[in-house]
Amino acid sequence: MDYTKKFLLSEQDMPRQWYNIAADMPVKPLPMLNPETRQPVTADELSVLFSREASLQELNMTDRFIDIPNEVLDLYKIWRCTPLVRAYGLEKALDTPAHIYFKNESVSPVGSHKLNSSIPQAFYCKAEGTTNVTTETGAGQWGTALSYAGKAFGLEVAVYMVKVSFEQKPYRRNIMQSYGATVIASPSMSTRAGREIITKYPNYAGSLGTAISEAVELARTTPEKCKYCLGSTMSHVSLHQTIIGLEAEKQMELAGEYPDIVVACFGGGSNFSGIAFPFMRHSFADPSLKTRFIAAEPSSCPKITRGVFQYDFGDQKGYTPLIPMFTLGHAFAPASIHAGGLRYHGAGSIVSQLAKDGWIEGADVDQLEAFDAALQFARAEAIIPAPESSHAIAVAIREALKCKRDGVKKTILFNLSGHGLMDMASYDRYLSGDLKNSPLTDDELHTSIDSLEKII
Amino acid sequence: MDYTKKFLLSEQDMPRQWYNIAADMPVKPLPMLNPETRQPVTADELSVLFSREASLQELNMTDRFIDIPNEVLDLYKIWRCTPLVRAYGLEKALDTPAHIYFKNESVSPVGSHKLNSSIPQAFYCKAEGTTNVTTETGAGQWGTALSYAGKAFGLEVAVYMVKVSFEQKPYRRNIMQSYGATVIASPSMSTRAGREIITKYPNYAGSLGTAISEAVELARTTPEKCKYCLGSTMSHVSLHQTIIGLEAEKQMELAGEYPDIVVACFGGGSNFSGIAFPFMRHSFADPSLKTRFIAAEPSSCPKITRGVFQYDFGDQKGYTPLIPMFTLGHAFAPASIHAGGLRYHGAGSIVSQLAKDGWIEGADVDQLEAFDAALQFARAEAIIPAPESSHAIAVAIREALKCKRDGVKKTILFNLSGHGLMDMASYDRYLSGDLKNSPLTDDELHTSIDSLEKII
Repeated sequence: MDYTKKFLLSEQDMPRQWYNIAADMPVKPLPMLNPETRQPVTADELSVLFSREASLQELNMTDRFIDIPNEVLDLYKIWRCTPLVRAYGLEKALDTPAHIYFKNESVSPVGSHKLNSSIPQAFYCKAEGTTNVTTETGAGQWGTALSYAGKAFGLEVAVYMVKVSFEQKPYRRNIMQSYGATVIASPSMSTRAGREIITKYPNYAGSLGTAISEAVELARTTPEKCKYCLGSTMSHVSLHQTIIGLEAEKQMELAGEYPDIVVACFGGGSNFSGIAFPFMRHSFADPSLKTRFIAAEPSSCPKITRGVFQYDFGDQKGYTPLIPMFTLGHAFAPASIHAGGLRYHGAGSIVSQLAKDGWIEGADVDQLEAFDAALQFARAEAIIPAPESSHAIAVAIREALKCKRDGVKKTILFNLSGHGLMDMASYDRYLSGDLKNSPLTDDELHTSIDSLEKII
Repeated sequence: MDYTKKFLLSEQDMPRQWYNIAADMPVKPLPMLNPETRQPVTADELSVLFSREASLQELNMTDRFIDIPNEVLDLYKIWRCTPLVRAYGLEKALDTPAHIYFKNESVSPVGSHKLNSSIPQAFYCKAEGTTNVTTETGAGQWGTALSYAGKAFGLEVAVYMVKVSFEQKPYRRNIMQSYGATVIASPSMSTRAGREIITKYPNYAGSLGTAISEAVELARTTPEKCKYCLGSTMSHVSLHQTIIGLEAEKQMELAGEYPDIVVACFGGGSNFSGIAFPFMRHSFADPSLKTRFIAAEPSSCPKITRGVFQYDFGDQKGYTPLIPMFTLGHAFAPASIHAGGLRYHGAGSIVSQLAKDGWIEGADVDQLEAFDAALQFARAEAIIPAPESSHAIAVAIREALKCKRDGVKKTILFNLSGHGLMDMASYDRYLSGDLKNSPLTDDELHTSIDSLEKII
């Protein structure tokens, strides 16, 4: 009873600034390019869609720390600081000499780390006179987080939700509606993009690509009043998520340890960046630190592990700026795994540069290994993890078992980005034996990447 | 930013003892009776079904504090101490001078307070050489909590789940299975009770009464090796839940306030007892304390508000001891509201005696008022509450609005017993306008209570 399992920070110890890794990177990321002019995008161009402040943050390469507004800190207080937990139960189950810690972002009211960015994004929109925000959502994590944040600041929130999810997975939709957001099945008749596809394919089930097009169109056709918010990939989203790692850094000090390995699952890269960047800055400054930063990817969508580094679009239709990224090709359609948040073809520009320069390594995880890790974790630590987070758990377990094999004690830190209570349908399929692995084949990879050569 | 929203306690400040209110009650509860002999039940009789230690706790009227075993404290550390939260957002939305606090039990890995008792119950079974535990579950809250706790101590767990829930609400079943429990649709062919009803009514959808019968039969027919665990009503369950109020007491001190009103929803009474008893002991000792303790009940099942005080059975079939209780009659079938955890006909013996003696008041809440309160709370405090907990929120809001009307500042404390993320189907129905109120009519009440007179 005399050991500490959870390392807590009071609200008074909550970080008051986010960490902007771009200021410290040994090699700066290449600029995003306007696809027409091939010139670096400007804050003016970005702020057609995003808030002015988010646009400036997106391009900020100089300020190491950026103040968190008081209004944002007030809402962070609802659940932050989140606990850092020593996974004694998992260590015992694995019989490993490794010390395993996880940052428990699942205690957020929406069950994931996404609120860390939806709150500042909504705040900046409100502060700049915007009345409406919009976004797209597939499984619903990001849409849920934006629904709460927008409403907390008195904004109208419109979420375009992929039609098949809208119909088959009503519960996340219900959460968004409970917060007071308007949720629209996409494709809808309310936008040109939606109407075009509905009239062409009357029973179309929707796709994330179409939902993005609808949300972007709504923002573009409602200038000044309506902004678009994104939940990952962009540098300003990663910036907001650094509060995870800044807290974890203080908490690891309380625990008297420093991580040898930092792991997070990797979709667009925001929760990974959030936990990794604050520790990585010490590696920049001190070459003797050998901390490994591992991006845990699904084997069906392994952009860091197997993708190529080049300019590509952030979306399937080619609406975004050209982003310097590790990518599987913007037209890549990943297998329909249950970790929906990881089914994204590319990585953000900062993470991609860091991976290119050897600061980040990728590790790909098959779906069955991820669920197996999830159950081991749930039985040992009581928390049912999100299928996305389970990829990080799987890599942490791999590394802990290596420690056991080699008789070496290492300190492993992973980010538990969310709980899986809204994802039990996928557990049902796993428990029923219905799930299969679907690793990306070399042929699929080459076909998708070959199509990319036409871009630049 | 300089105010405190969440009052935290470290693991080192966690209470090491539960509070046994029976030792302090001005009028002791009447004994439970063996229905055949009409003599007070003994620990020997109770421990046929329950662990020996739980049976002794059930009858303990003398020890004010009972040690929490170290093994239980170790597992409590996974999520305890839970935060005490000042509901600034809700206060602002209501524009009330009242100070509203809630104890956030929803941060438990299973999303409710139920782990507080499942862990010690499973521990005592393990310590006494039991290898299996069993219980019944309707919506699944208790079954989930026992599934984790049993497995944590290496016990086999069998949960009889009402068949219609097993089929229509697979997600809580999936959580139990993820923890490694065996979940059996009830009625099943594995017990005599199940076989009898299946063969008589081949398509029977199941009921909590039948599931109880099956679990009890399994325990009785597997003596020594298999014990039965209950999630509410019993005094030992309330004892375990007092950790909620013991923590809240310390946290209210940190906040520099003492509650004028303590509210919790009321099903069998365990979460209510948990938050109320530690404060009530001060009211026993100091007559100048005028704290009100309010049991928030559904208007469809208002035993404290409208029931009668007399001996009755705890279950529909009449298998339990006779319990001195506020009851609507053990054959009472409450309307099918969504707060499944509150659909119970009676209150435990301690709570009933306290209500009889004026220490507890009841307040009944219609289903629509509860959901309306839930949405107000979710939009103000970000957390989607369980439908059960929403009854407590509704009463807290009523009292806060009275404060506003009267221009009086009162301190209101309620227990948020769980989150509603597994209950979004009921929110869906509410948001769709499909839900109706179903208050108990006088005719229904009298019919049910009249049938009771035959018992004693």
